[in-house]
Amino acid sequence: MSKKRPAKQCRPLRITRKFTDTPAGSVLIEMGQTRVLCTASLEPSVPKWREGSGLGWVTAEYNMLPGSTSPRKPRPKTGITDSRGTEIQRLVGRSLRSAVDLKKLGEVSIVIDCDVLQADGGTRTAAINGGFIALMDAIKYGKKQKFIQDDPILHHIGAMSVGIVHGKVCVDLDYELDSQADVDFNVVMTESGQYIELQGTGEETTFSPDQLNDLLLAAKRAIRQMVKYQKVSLTKKSTLFEK
Amino acid sequence: MSKKRPAKQCRPLRITRKFTDTPAGSVLIEMGQTRVLCTASLEPSVPKWREGSGLGWVTAEYNMLPGSTSPRKPRPKTGITDSRGTEIQRLVGRSLRSAVDLKKLGEVSIVIDCDVLQADGGTRTAAINGGFIALMDAIKYGKKQKFIQDDPILHHIGAMSVGIVHGKVCVDLDYELDSQADVDFNVVMTESGQYIELQGTGEETTFSPDQLNDLLLAAKRAIRQMVKYQKVSLTKKSTLFEK
Amino acid sequence: MSKKRPAKQCRPLRITRKFTDTPAGSVLIEMGQTRVLCTASLEPSVPKWREGSGLGWVTAEYNMLPGSTSPRKPRPKTGITDSRGTEIQRLVGRSLRSAVDLKKLGEVSIVIDCDVLQADGGTRTAAINGGFIALMDAIKYGKKQKFIQDDPILHHIGAMSVGIVHGKVCVDLDYELDSQADVDFNVVMTESGQYIELQGTGEETTFSPDQLNDLLLAAKRAIRQMVKYQKVSLTKKSTLFEK
Amino acid sequence: MSKKRPAKQCRPLRITRKFTDTPAGSVLIEMGQTRVLCTASLEPSVPKWREGSGLGWVTAEYNMLPGSTSPRKPRPKTGITDSRGTEIQRLVGRSLRSAVDLKKLGEVSIVIDCDVLQADGGTRTAAINGGFIALMDAIKYGKKQKFIQDDPILHHIGAMSVGIVHGKVCVDLDYELDSQADVDFNVVMTESGQYIELQGTGEETTFSPDQLNDLLLAAKRAIRQMVKYQKVSLTKKSTLFEK
Amino acid sequence: MSKKRPAKQCRPLRITRKFTDTPAGSVLIEMGQTRVLCTASLEPSVPKWREGSGLGWVTAEYNMLPGSTSPRKPRPKTGITDSRGTEIQRLVGRSLRSAVDLKKLGEVSIVIDCDVLQADGGTRTAAINGGFIALMDAIKYGKKQKFIQDDPILHHIGAMSVGIVHGKVCVDLDYELDSQADVDFNVVMTESGQYIELQGTGEETTFSPDQLNDLLLAAKRAIRQMVKYQKVSLTKKSTLFEK
Amino acid sequence: MSKKRPAKQCRPLRITRKFTDTPAGSVLIEMGQTRVLCTASLEPSVPKWREGSGLGWVTAEYNMLPGSTSPRKPRPKTGITDSRGTEIQRLVGRSLRSAVDLKKLGEVSIVIDCDVLQADGGTRTAAINGGFIALMDAIKYGKKQKFIQDDPILHHIGAMSVGIVHGKVCVDLDYELDSQADVDFNVVMTESGQYIELQGTGEETTFSPDQLNDLLLAAKRAIRQMVKYQKVSLTKKSTLFEK
Repeated sequence: MSKKRPAKQCRPLRITRKFTDTPAGSVLIEMGQTRVLCTASLEPSVPKWREGSGLGWVTAEYNMLPGSTSPRKPRPKTGITDSRGTEIQRLVGRSLRSAVDLKKLGEVSIVIDCDVLQADGGTRTAAINGGFIALMDAIKYGKKQKFIQDDPILHHIGAMSVGIVHGKVCVDLDYELDSQADVDFNVVMTESGQYIELQGTGEETTFSPDQLNDLLLAAKRAIRQMVKYQKVSLTKKSTLFEK
Repeated sequence: MSKKRPAKQCRPLRITRKFTDTPAGSVLIEMGQTRVLCTASLEPSVPKWREGSGLGWVTAEYNMLPGSTSPRKPRPKTGITDSRGTEIQRLVGRSLRSAVDLKKLGEVSIVIDCDVLQADGGTRTAAINGGFIALMDAIKYGKKQKFIQDDPILHHIGAMSVGIVHGKVCVDLDYELDSQADVDFNVVMTESGQYIELQGTGEETTFSPDQLNDLLLAAKRAIRQMVKYQKVSLTKKSTLFEK
Repeated sequence: MSKKRPAKQCRPLRITRKFTDTPAGSVLIEMGQTRVLCTASLEPSVPKWREGSGLGWVTAEYNMLPGSTSPRKPRPKTGITDSRGTEIQRLVGRSLRSAVDLKKLGEVSIVIDCDVLQADGGTRTAAINGGFIALMDAIKYGKKQKFIQDDPILHHIGAMSVGIVHGKVCVDLDYELDSQADVDFNVVMTESGQYIELQGTGEETTFSPDQLNDLLLAAKRAIRQMVKYQKVSLTKKSTLFEK
Repeated sequence: MSKKRPAKQCRPLRITRKFTDTPAGSVLIEMGQTRVLCTASLEPSVPKWREGSGLGWVTAEYNMLPGSTSPRKPRPKTGITDSRGTEIQRLVGRSLRSAVDLKKLGEVSIVIDCDVLQADGGTRTAAINGGFIALMDAIKYGKKQKFIQDDPILHHIGAMSVGIVHGKVCVDLDYELDSQADVDFNVVMTESGQYIELQGTGEETTFSPDQLNDLLLAAKRAIRQMVKYQKVSLTKKSTLFEK
Repeated sequence: MSKKRPAKQCRPLRITRKFTDTPAGSVLIEMGQTRVLCTASLEPSVPKWREGSGLGWVTAEYNMLPGSTSPRKPRPKTGITDSRGTEIQRLVGRSLRSAVDLKKLGEVSIVIDCDVLQADGGTRTAAINGGFIALMDAIKYGKKQKFIQDDPILHHIGAMSVGIVHGKVCVDLDYELDSQADVDFNVVMTESGQYIELQGTGEETTFSPDQLNDLLLAAKRAIRQMVKYQKVSLTKKSTLFEK
Repeated sequence: MSKKRPAKQCRPLRITRKFTDTPAGSVLIEMGQTRVLCTASLEPSVPKWREGSGLGWVTAEYNMLPGSTSPRKPRPKTGITDSRGTEIQRLVGRSLRSAVDLKKLGEVSIVIDCDVLQADGGTRTAAINGGFIALMDAIKYGKKQKFIQDDPILHHIGAMSVGIVHGKVCVDLDYELDSQADVDFNVVMTESGQYIELQGTGEETTFSPDQLNDLLLAAKRAIRQMVKYQKVSLTKKSTLFEK
């Protein structure tokens, strides 16, 4: 199936807001077959080490449900996720934090939990994209509840995976493409094309400055569209973006 | 809202099969506002201690996602779930195992993961009901794949929570009712009314043999209906049972 | 040996109070070959989450010593007990807590540690029966020390395991009977026959409402006797009840 | 009470063999108010790293039950004992291992579990003394069961705590003496006065070579008597040695 | 002190090979005040999941000694490092693995342990640079010992941190610069300027494509020099590169 | 190599103070091929349980780096060190604490981290000797910073391993000697020959009072010299004591 999709076209995207009712923000994001439930919980206090600073706190946790992969992925026995998950949740947390003016947020904590229901490549960028919507919803809720006074959002952010597969730049890689990719990149950007996070690795090869430029260009285009779609989704409960 | 529902009428039930595509069985069960994702993973082998026995293995894991409650429930730092979750997953595992002829299953393992997406009372019975459908689907898949030869299902099973609230027997308690209940019961039964598991506790009170009879009668009726609904759901992808 | 005992007669029971001198309550209970050391430690404070509530706290921990079984049972590497032990200690804790008026207890904690010295079936009911005596002694000590003002005991409680073995209802099952039982029940009751906890499981079978009635009746009779014996034991240091 | 006992006289000693029936060796040792249950479990195999060596394995685990002290000692959350317990169980293990010809033992493992039921000073020496009897009984059992061919016991061993309290050498220190001791020594010896283990610490002071000599002399005398008592106890189920 | 150093000049670099004698490779690398001990241990086998593949395995572990920072950094209580360390050791492992033809390495494992003795910024790039020398030495040793047949090194690699501080691109940031940096980048490259890993984050800001270009250019120059210095160091025991 | 050294002569000793710059005290001690980095971190507060006592706190942690042995020693997965390390760090902590008047120290904590860079026997005595110099330096620093008012050092202490190898008393055993030793002793003494800690074990044999005397005499001589060398080293950055 992935073979028929043009290399620089993203997979179908579906964003369902208020997927569950309990948390302040709750988004099911589907990028192709990858599905991540992103819930944003808001607490009117900050961790001990931050008390009295006047600053808020935004953090993320990432985990894959056992049934999200085949064969089944056993739950971690210690810690809240495994070492790959730790690397990812640090990336997600930094990215989402960078979108928020923590001074304007005030002494409020937002934890964004990203639980992967189904994994088919690109779970970390799905977590950032879905997590950002959940974060927006949680802030809207916090303002309504008067926990938060000013709008602390600095800019819209979007994330995309790009890679080089058989010499060609591809975006939004599914598992099959990802496992064939020579280079694997995750890019987080603002709407206006400023970088927030950049993580690239030449899995079993290296890559040239020219290839880097091509990758970043493709990422930029895809993220611009992603942010556009995010904005539409913020006005609806559930939206499917096919192309 | 819960006050308007007749005490012996179950909450609206929705069963969505194939909610995700990766595992052999994948069911989203919604009993009122409680939602549990039950995935059944099938492996053509058994744990070490069971090798060579000719017997299969069925087990369950239960966990609540952090965003399933408000305030947010932190992830367990050690072990796969907390102590309450341990008690529940042992109940779920025993119940599902009892529905399977492990000899007919052969040296095959089925793990049913029950991840609570939203908690509003009755998560353990939802896990058993949804887990049973996932188990059925996994066995169907295993037979198609020739991992499993004979149908090992012994009987249909259903689970229901019942309780005494302000002196009245109620079924399928949501969180609000549950927190007011004097007696809290979880019953697992076969279609024909035979008991599989019975766990009852007088939270802050005791209960009489007569009350026990009333509770069990109410559970029996509700479970008979639950099994009926399960059977319907096994013919469809998603079904809503309003009454 | 177990074969000669009438099915509805309990095993010889020995209750030794003040088995050790350090804790406020210390009971060695022997039900047949099962021996559990139950110590009740009293602290004039409550856990953080309960401070200022005016309510006391009663909880239990259950563990099996490595030498209590053959082959030796390795100590748990994480957590205070294994998953079976977690299920049991929650049952023991709820049962003992239900016997106490936590308001009358006041902001005092009682921890009942149930350490199995030798396991021959029925360790959880032995833990509840022995733990209750240790709890009584701890409360007596607390009143003498003026930690506790009023008597907070609501009622005497007793626990018994019952089961169906080869079609016959048996009480107080030893390991041999337990491993042959089709149905396995643990019942906690007050002196007057009110239920506190009920946990039953059809190990590899199911059971009918009639069988349930027979089981509960047998449990009731055995518990009534157990409470009688407990009351005698509260007047002596060590007592053996042969029949 | 301890004040009246002559400084170089041991506390009353009681050794109860076969205190429980399940393990190959099971000894309750009481040195004054200190009581340690020592069970020796025998397995006809050795740990992986020792397979094929022709050598046996003897090891020990030490733990204090929560109710053994006042205030209650919480159970360790990770690992099988705390850091003090780790230090002690290594001493106990080395001491007991030194009494056994591991070649003659053959590929058999003996684990000696030392669980402190009540702690009043000297728990580690009680664990060694009681553990040695349990070890002897386990070997006897192993020979009867034909797991063990030759008698692998090299020599009888005994252990004693000695210390300097207010300038005077004392033996078999209870908690009260121990907490006042300037120097605290644990000595493990053979019957004939050869050293096996020697661990001494000047808690908040230092000690001279002359003081060391006095301590070792007192330990030697007390251990010689301890071994004598051990030998008597090996012929009886329970014995009390008052002086 | 750091203020006087030109922004694009690296800190003094010292590479001491054979710092310890036990491991196959042992390098103390000092980049300014940052000091990391990199030891490479070689084992003539691979992890279970890789047996029979014909492929070797290269991995890294990263940890900071408690005394490497002020205030003292407590040791991790579970797991081999904390979550920041987990992110870093995955980067170090991937980078070093990319320099090796795992097929030519054969079924041999190399673990590179990077223990930070003193932390003053740039510990992850120091770990990669020092780890690469240790890896080279381990491979040389393996070839001498006939564990390894062919030279599996694909290319020399170097790593450098670059950042934007007060609007200016800086290389090899020490802690003081790092804490003021708006953008923080870690680049791993081959000698010939091909990328291996790229990780950049706009700590509390974003960065433009032009700034990215400047950063990558500065990194490229510094890494080219780093590889030159590495090559010199491979001919000597200890070398100091002042400029 | 070890064979040529006279049995009662210590290995070459090198003490390098201020090996790293961050901690208040930082000593690399080399006894032959054994190298231990001892850092002393000073905090102007004490653990919770000691607050308000007016007393300071001195403690130690001991760990072996993975590359310190061959084959590589995996890092502990739980806890800060393994069970052997726990035993050692308790010895090191007690020994160093005994050198300090905790009242004079005041409510200040000193943690001495002993990380073994290379292990060739005698790591625990190296940790005590090096740790003591680091402790002295930390106290000097604390007095300069006015954290500490009076000099709290009670006496200089030294530690030495002694053993019986092939019937002969040896001092400062390297790994080769240690593995052949029948008796293994660690002695901690003051300058003037008073004992602080004594730990001896007849690995696979026993030892007589006469042998004990010879061991202690050899230890005393070697420690007297060690303290002399320590005092010299306190006046220099790095010193090598060849004989």
